[in-house]
Formats: sequence, structure tokens, C-alpha cells
Amino acid sequence: MGNGKNKDYFLGIDLGGTKILAGVFDAKLELQGDSKLSTKADRGVTAVIDRIARCAREALDECDLDLKQIRGLGVGAPGAADSESGRIIIAPNLPGWKDIPLKKELEKRLGVPVFVGNDCNVCTLGVFEQEYKARPRHLAGIFIGTGIGAGLILNGELYGGHNLTAGEVGHMVIEINGPKCGCGNRGCFEALASRTAIFRIIQSAVKDGQKTVLTDMLGSGLKDMRSGDLRKAIRRGDKFVEKTVLEAAEYAGVGVANVINLLNPEVVVLGGGLIEALQDEMMPVIVKTAKEHALSGTSSGIEIKASKLGDHAGITGAAVLARRGVT
Amino acid sequence: MGNGKNKDYFLGIDLGGTKILAGVFDAKLELQGDSKLSTKADRGVTAVIDRIARCAREALDECDLDLKQIRGLGVGAPGAADSESGRIIIAPNLPGWKDIPLKKELEKRLGVPVFVGNDCNVCTLGVFEQEYKARPRHLAGIFIGTGIGAGLILNGELYGGHNLTAGEVGHMVIEINGPKCGCGNRGCFEALASRTAIFRIIQSAVKDGQKTVLTDMLGSGLKDMRSGDLRKAIRRGDKFVEKTVLEAAEYAGVGVANVINLLNPEVVVLGGGLIEALQDEMMPVIVKTAKEHALSGTSSGIEIKASKLGDHAGITGAAVLARRGVT
Repeated sequence: MGNGKNKDYFLGIDLGGTKILAGVFDAKLELQGDSKLSTKADRGVTAVIDRIARCAREALDECDLDLKQIRGLGVGAPGAADSESGRIIIAPNLPGWKDIPLKKELEKRLGVPVFVGNDCNVCTLGVFEQEYKARPRHLAGIFIGTGIGAGLILNGELYGGHNLTAGEVGHMVIEINGPKCGCGNRGCFEALASRTAIFRIIQSAVKDGQKTVLTDMLGSGLKDMRSGDLRKAIRRGDKFVEKTVLEAAEYAGVGVANVINLLNPEVVVLGGGLIEALQDEMMPVIVKTAKEHALSGTSSGIEIKASKLGDHAGITGAAVLARRGVT
Repeated sequence: MGNGKNKDYFLGIDLGGTKILAGVFDAKLELQGDSKLSTKADRGVTAVIDRIARCAREALDECDLDLKQIRGLGVGAPGAADSESGRIIIAPNLPGWKDIPLKKELEKRLGVPVFVGNDCNVCTLGVFEQEYKARPRHLAGIFIGTGIGAGLILNGELYGGHNLTAGEVGHMVIEINGPKCGCGNRGCFEALASRTAIFRIIQSAVKDGQKTVLTDMLGSGLKDMRSGDLRKAIRRGDKFVEKTVLEAAEYAGVGVANVINLLNPEVVVLGGGLIEALQDEMMPVIVKTAKEHALSGTSSGIEIKASKLGDHAGITGAAVLARRGVT
């Protein structure tokens, strides 16, 4: 693929709490090669930055390209990012990540221009440019996994807000007397519809004697339960798991409707680990519930879909960030 | 005030379901004169448009100006407005108002350039330009009265969304199993914290035997209860009314927090009839609850305040709309 001459490639990095993904893209956003590494966040900030650089080099090696052929590198990080200065303001899931000059550190290590952004914003950017060809004026990306976050494209541009923290949809209250959330409040979207919320409900029911095939699959402690296990359990006919997942999908539909009523976007795209694994089960319920709860004038003509980019949304969006940055 | 020569005045019209307000402003947005007329919506669309024109002329007469001195007229209407074509797409509280060419009809009657907008957007514009001197980049105006609506200034501009219906914050669900809302869903912001919601709770409690000074003031049917009556009852020491109002304020605080978490504005301004009448009682609770429910990074540096424009927000914003339109 790489011909050794063409310098028109971009690196996209998805920095997560447990893993780092790197992807090399050509200027048309076609993926040329990728690589994956565990984050090892507990080794500290410098070690993680070293691992990002290593993951980037490995992705390049995969597709026989080298850093000289890279015009720019983008990173989506799990926290608040100041895209102007290239600093990570804070990343709550990465110990020690407070006011880290990530752009500067990566440029030192790799010698290419670096651009940083918040992970949900970056995923939304990837969906917007790659999947939707930058056509919609207003698009909301809602990502449901361990937590829930969103990125907003308003008037064709990423919207950051006053402190660059816009899109904290996971802490929108939708059931004021609902279950306790990690943030200290009750009934947040994230406490009702995230993978964490579903696991909490299942684990607590199992403790109370609920039968489920999940205990056959994973043992009575349900250790290392993943989204894919929920899908397997449902496909094996486990009605309890199905009911729990579909209830979470209903909450997710209400969360989507709240975003629609407030922002009246043209497109709402859902992504994240839980949606990827349980798309077939959850999406019909999410779409139905969202349309029931959105005002008719507001939801007319709106498209609510799961992203096709799956796990690649982050690296794609990070490459878009780099492409936007250098041009 | 009018010297018969200067043509630098603007008319602002606030078209409501029960009353029409008109105000004449100079180019610095100082109010020169105003006028008020009942809407008489049941007389039909043409009659209401005639009354808007009459109200405008009466406001001019109040301050010894005439239409020749008016550069433009703005109208805030209770519904979806297409500001490009000057049509009211739909106004649910005004019978017959569907696809009405309000701009064209008023220009025919008054001979000045006319600009139309949604009432919450227009009020927000007034607060933004007059009260905040167009300084904040991101400002949300939330108006609590019979219903609840919002206007959004994002990146310094009014945000409309795909169908120009953005800001339908009143139908954001915050208590999924809460009381039924007019829209058919349960637990909408409007069903929990509007004047209508408070009146419903009070009326139902009185039916169940609850004692309140409101029945001394208004009779046992609580006919024609207004926001000001709630304030009077609280100031006479009515603990039941106080508790009901403060609970609504808590819900309002959660609604405000949801907007903050999603949009991370710099300023949230509250207005509307309920806030005007009960500002001293409600605002401390709204601010406290909103700050408790907003993520700390998101709410840091944010200002949450009641508008000082009160009843004049609509006419001021409509004048701003006209001033923006002609320049």
C-alpha cells in the first residue's frame, strides 16, 4: 500500500482506560493498518504516552508505512481536552492525567503534528465525516459503554461549550429518584442504561437468587462479564437478561429523546461497546421509545441509527481531527 | 422623545396566547413606550394580525412616534417560526395558526420591514443583547410559566436546529414515572415545574382536604389562580404552598443541570411568569440544585440567574430581532 513516496496518510489514536488503538488512514479515510496495546494506566503518564507512540509505530509497521509519510496524528482521549493548546485538562479514568501536554510530548516522540480531542467528540467527528460525508448540519453522537457520553456537531462544527465539556449526556437526570450514579446524583442516564448499570442490576438479581445462563457461562460471581456475554445469553433464550437489556434500551430511548427535544438534530448516531454488541436487540427499542418521547414537530425527518464504524469510530475520528488540523 | 426626524426606532411585539405586548425601542434598546392588548385568539388569524398592528400603532402613539420613524418590527410568536420566510409554521396555542405568512401580512398593514421568531428564542435574544451586551458565547434562556421553553445562544448565535424547534426543554423527561404531561408522556420538566404543574398539585390537594390561604383568597374552586397568588400565600406563611413551590424549584434545578451537562453554557438565565413572581423563593433552590446536579468541570464558572427584563424580555428581544434584520 505505502509506496514510500506519498506523504498523505494520517494516524488516528483512540486512547482508552484499558486499551490504546492506533489506525493509519489515507486521505480518503480508508484504513490501511491498525494496532492495539493495553494502556497500563497504572504505570503513570509518561509510560502511557510512550505506549501511544509505540502503538502508532506498530500500526505504521503493519501497513509498511513510516512516520515520514504521516501528515498528522490525532488522539481522542477520555476526558476534557483543550484542542488549542493540545493539553489534556483532566482524564478521570487515567490516574495522574491532569493538565498533560499530550500534543507536545507526542510531537517530541514522533516528529509529526499532533492534535488532541475528547474521545466522544472525536468518535462523533469520525461518524460525521466518514459515515455521513459531513452532510448533516446537526448531528449528535451518543456512545453507550461502561459510561455514556456524547459529541455534538452543531451548524456543521464540533460544539465544545464554555469549558469544552459539552456532551455530558451521561449525567442528564431522567429518573430523579432512580439508582445512585457514580457522580453522586440519582437517576442519571448512565446509571440506568450503561453497561455498568446493566451489570449492576444482573449481579444484584443473581445475589437475590435470580437464575440466568450467565452464571453457567461465567460462574456464580459473574466475573469478567462483557457486553458480548449479554448477547449470548439473550440468544440462548435467557428472558431475564433480555428484559434487563430491553429496559436499559427504553431508558436510552428517553435519553435520546431528551437530546432531540433540546437540540433538534437531523441525525442521532449511537455507538459504544454496548450498542455494538447488542445493536439488534437494543436499537429497535431505542428508536421506538425516542420517537414516542420526542415532540412530533421536533423529531420529524430525524434519523436515529447505530454507527457502522463500531470500534473504529475513535481511530477514524482521530484521523479526521489530524486531517482537519493540517489543512 | 420622538423629534419627527430621527428614523432609528424599532418595534418589538410579544404575541402570546392571551395577550399582545408592543414596545417601541431606540437603537440602544431603551424602551420609549409600550402597549398591551388581549389576543382574542378565538376570533381567528386575521383578527389577531389586525390586533398586532393595532397594538403596534398604540405603542407608537404612547411615545409620540409614528411608523415613518420605525426601521423594523420584530415579533416573537408562541410556536415554530421560519425566520427566513417570515412564516409561523405552527403555534399550538393559537387556533388556526398553521403556516401563516405573518411577515407579509404585517408588512402589508404597517409598511415597515417585519421579522418573526419563536417566542423563547426572541426572549433569549433580548436577554443576550440587552442584559448581557452580547458578551457570553453560550447562553441558555429557560422560561417557566404556563409551559416551559428555552432559547439557546451557541457560539454567539441563536441555535435553531434541523426543524427550527430546538429548545423544547419543557418536554425533557426528568422523572420517567412522574405525572402525565400534556404531550402524552410522563415526567416532563413542564409536568413537574411549570405554573400549570404547581396549580394541578394545589388543586388536587385542596380537593383532598388540604387547607391553604389560597381558598380564602380565591374561593374553594381556586378560580383564576395566578403566580402572584402563590407569592402572596407564601408571604402569609402558607407552608403547604411554600413546599409545593420549592419542590417545583428543585425539579427546575435538575432541568437546568441537564441543560448545563449537555451544553456547558457560560450563562443560564431564567425567566417567565412563574420566575418573575417567585424569584426570591425559587431562585436560591434552583441554583443550589442545579450546581449539585451538574458535573463540577462543566458547571465551573457558570452563572445561573433570573433575568432582570421580566415581562419586557419578549418585546426587547423582538426589537433586537428587527435591529439585526435591518442591519
